[in-house]
Amino acid sequence: MGKKLKKKKGQALWERAKKIIPGGNQLLSKRAEMFLPEGWPSYYTKAKGVHVWDLDGKKYIDMSIMSVGACLLGYADQDVNRAVKKAVDGGSISTLNPPEEVELAELFIKIHPWAKMVRYARTGGEAAAVAIRIARAYSGKDKIAFCGYHGWQDWYLSANLAHKKNLDGHLLAGLSAKGVPRGLAGSALPFHYNNIAELESIAARHKDIGAIVMEPIRYAEPAKGFLQNVRRIADEIGAVLIFDEISSGFKVHYGGAHLLYGVNPDIAVFAKAISNGFPMAAIIGKEEVMQAAQESFISSTYWTERVGPAAALATLKKMKEKKIHAHMKKMATLIRSGLKTLADKHELKMNFSGLPTVVVFSFDYGDESQAIRTLFTQEMLVRGFLASNAIYVSYSHSEKDVRAYLKSADEVFVLLKDAVRNNKVKEFLKGPVAHAGFQRLT
Amino acid sequence: MGKKLKKKKGQALWERAKKIIPGGNQLLSKRAEMFLPEGWPSYYTKAKGVHVWDLDGKKYIDMSIMSVGACLLGYADQDVNRAVKKAVDGGSISTLNPPEEVELAELFIKIHPWAKMVRYARTGGEAAAVAIRIARAYSGKDKIAFCGYHGWQDWYLSANLAHKKNLDGHLLAGLSAKGVPRGLAGSALPFHYNNIAELESIAARHKDIGAIVMEPIRYAEPAKGFLQNVRRIADEIGAVLIFDEISSGFKVHYGGAHLLYGVNPDIAVFAKAISNGFPMAAIIGKEEVMQAAQESFISSTYWTERVGPAAALATLKKMKEKKIHAHMKKMATLIRSGLKTLADKHELKMNFSGLPTVVVFSFDYGDESQAIRTLFTQEMLVRGFLASNAIYVSYSHSEKDVRAYLKSADEVFVLLKDAVRNNKVKEFLKGPVAHAGFQRLT
Repeated sequence: MGKKLKKKKGQALWERAKKIIPGGNQLLSKRAEMFLPEGWPSYYTKAKGVHVWDLDGKKYIDMSIMSVGACLLGYADQDVNRAVKKAVDGGSISTLNPPEEVELAELFIKIHPWAKMVRYARTGGEAAAVAIRIARAYSGKDKIAFCGYHGWQDWYLSANLAHKKNLDGHLLAGLSAKGVPRGLAGSALPFHYNNIAELESIAARHKDIGAIVMEPIRYAEPAKGFLQNVRRIADEIGAVLIFDEISSGFKVHYGGAHLLYGVNPDIAVFAKAISNGFPMAAIIGKEEVMQAAQESFISSTYWTERVGPAAALATLKKMKEKKIHAHMKKMATLIRSGLKTLADKHELKMNFSGLPTVVVFSFDYGDESQAIRTLFTQEMLVRGFLASNAIYVSYSHSEKDVRAYLKSADEVFVLLKDAVRNNKVKEFLKGPVAHAGFQRLT
Repeated sequence: MGKKLKKKKGQALWERAKKIIPGGNQLLSKRAEMFLPEGWPSYYTKAKGVHVWDLDGKKYIDMSIMSVGACLLGYADQDVNRAVKKAVDGGSISTLNPPEEVELAELFIKIHPWAKMVRYARTGGEAAAVAIRIARAYSGKDKIAFCGYHGWQDWYLSANLAHKKNLDGHLLAGLSAKGVPRGLAGSALPFHYNNIAELESIAARHKDIGAIVMEPIRYAEPAKGFLQNVRRIADEIGAVLIFDEISSGFKVHYGGAHLLYGVNPDIAVFAKAISNGFPMAAIIGKEEVMQAAQESFISSTYWTERVGPAAALATLKKMKEKKIHAHMKKMATLIRSGLKTLADKHELKMNFSGLPTVVVFSFDYGDESQAIRTLFTQEMLVRGFLASNAIYVSYSHSEKDVRAYLKSADEVFVLLKDAVRNNKVKEFLKGPVAHAGFQRLT
């Protein structure tokens, strides 16, 4: 290990946090250990556009997860913030309901004409759980066939009760199902994306599947006919088809990704991206399916506040007006092709994946890959970039930002090449290698 | 039924909402049908202090649920809103974490010295589910003994799978468990508040109780030794004791209600009241219990935003500085004694309950009681009050507000007495009787 960096304020606070917050924070993907253990700034004082300021006042360009894609317009967007502050000044909650939630429901239905009814929640995890509840209430059947990532709640994690690696390969590896009631074992049945035979086989073996849940797209395009066949199977077995658009929705175009593929689910779930970072989630669906929500008790006080719908209305309006996706795709293409060119130039083995607006890459060096990625993060950080192996492009990312990022990546790749060739990766690292998945922190 | 009122904007929007939002809104307790079907304003444009403006611009004094007790400082509190707007301007979320969450954790621990660690969520329902997950992960046992109300999630509603009236008497009657997986049947075992023998019996019959969950107080004081005995039983059977302080916390004094009774749980859950209406929830607990959160996957993107902790810090600070509970108790006492005096004066049979800062009453006329309460709401509404059978007092309620409310109640009680004596309640009502619990809307 190389010479340690002087401990920054953010790192000191992170150490303090881990003593009083189990795991240090509220999201695995924002832990310092996932980026650069002992070196990541961890906390921000200010964020604006693509810029983030840490506790020491150092300014970075965010060329990493942009809050896991929750801010497609960029941080602290002035139009969204104006709408939010208006809602705050006018009272963010009361005994009466916010009319904005009706206007927002009408907008969701307009964007997705197959859907006729809408419910809300405030976080993605609970929104997915609401969709599952409605689907089970409607179908009268409890089992769920799923692929992809759907959050922390019991119904999903229960997949790992039957087999502790069931969720590996669905985004995060090694997720522990400890604390999930064992009565749910066998209730969530995983299948793999683009593997229709697997879903056919599950459907043939289980008569009581009430819902099929999936992300319509994550890192790869759906194979020809895949989504159509999922739809057909759902209809054949009387299961509610749920598209979880929490990660994909509004990310590649205006609306759910499923609109691109001409396959409509019975329910779609949205959260991240719809409100530019303010807690808000929507569950939209066909009328007869959604009415089953009335047969169950689905109710929460904070779901009635006004900031969420006000932020969503302003965000959806601006996304459309500014045609943000064309810009985002252009920037993502520049980044992807720029990185590929640099990889060739420096003879670094890299793989690329992701959505058209999310660039995901990995260094392809077996057991050393994660250490090399950590070194990349370390060196980019010194140069003023929050950088990891995924770049969630926002409307605020400019060509200038991309050029600056690629220029620094060019420098860092020289160092990476040297480290790889001369077996010096660990030597160059000033701290431990980043975690790749779920892991207990001490 | 009397002559119908002219339909107001809010009522028209409510009708529209019910066509595209199952149940019309996101919280049973804020449905028009719970107050005054066909007459309730339903929506607000502005709320400030104790005042709420409806879509027609009519101003009301909120002498009802004050957003179910979520705004103890009053609506749109200027100090909380200032902190929120600062967080919004500075960027409400980023790839890095908000330092406010660490400061807030330290404050929760300072207020509750038995607790050493803190996690957050954004709604009460999911916060209770987080606590249950942690308790099950820590104890290794799945069954839950509970009393009181704990929200919409599967673990709680599953009580009604075994017996559809299991949850009756725990706040809301007739809650449907449709859509809750049947594998959870028998996992949540209800006992009644202040009935220690019932809990003893459950504990004797079930060896695998991992958690005992209860509200330390709702409408009645704990009987002598009750909470101590619950604590003893939890220790004897190796169950995690969870106090759900979502409704009681900070409501009667600064901190969890349990601090008043000298009985510490292993975990306490807070939501409503801690952030004056902005979505925020906290799960606090003993270190060794809370560390079990690290053995499970509990993670959500919106839990990392900054508005929630910023609002909570400002709210907790102001609550303490202004000693709001002394004022709230004084106002509640005035309201309670004022209403009792009026009941005597007009010879109306009424019962009173509630916390020292929440006045709850009912008219005691058998099957007619709910119709009389509806008529009370109808007539108070005309006089400029949002009024029902519960008054959640806030710091913004003044003696002047209370006097105005009692003056109008005095007038309305004349009418109620006439209606009761001459069997004219239904005749005086301009719409249907309010719902008392869970019911499907058309």
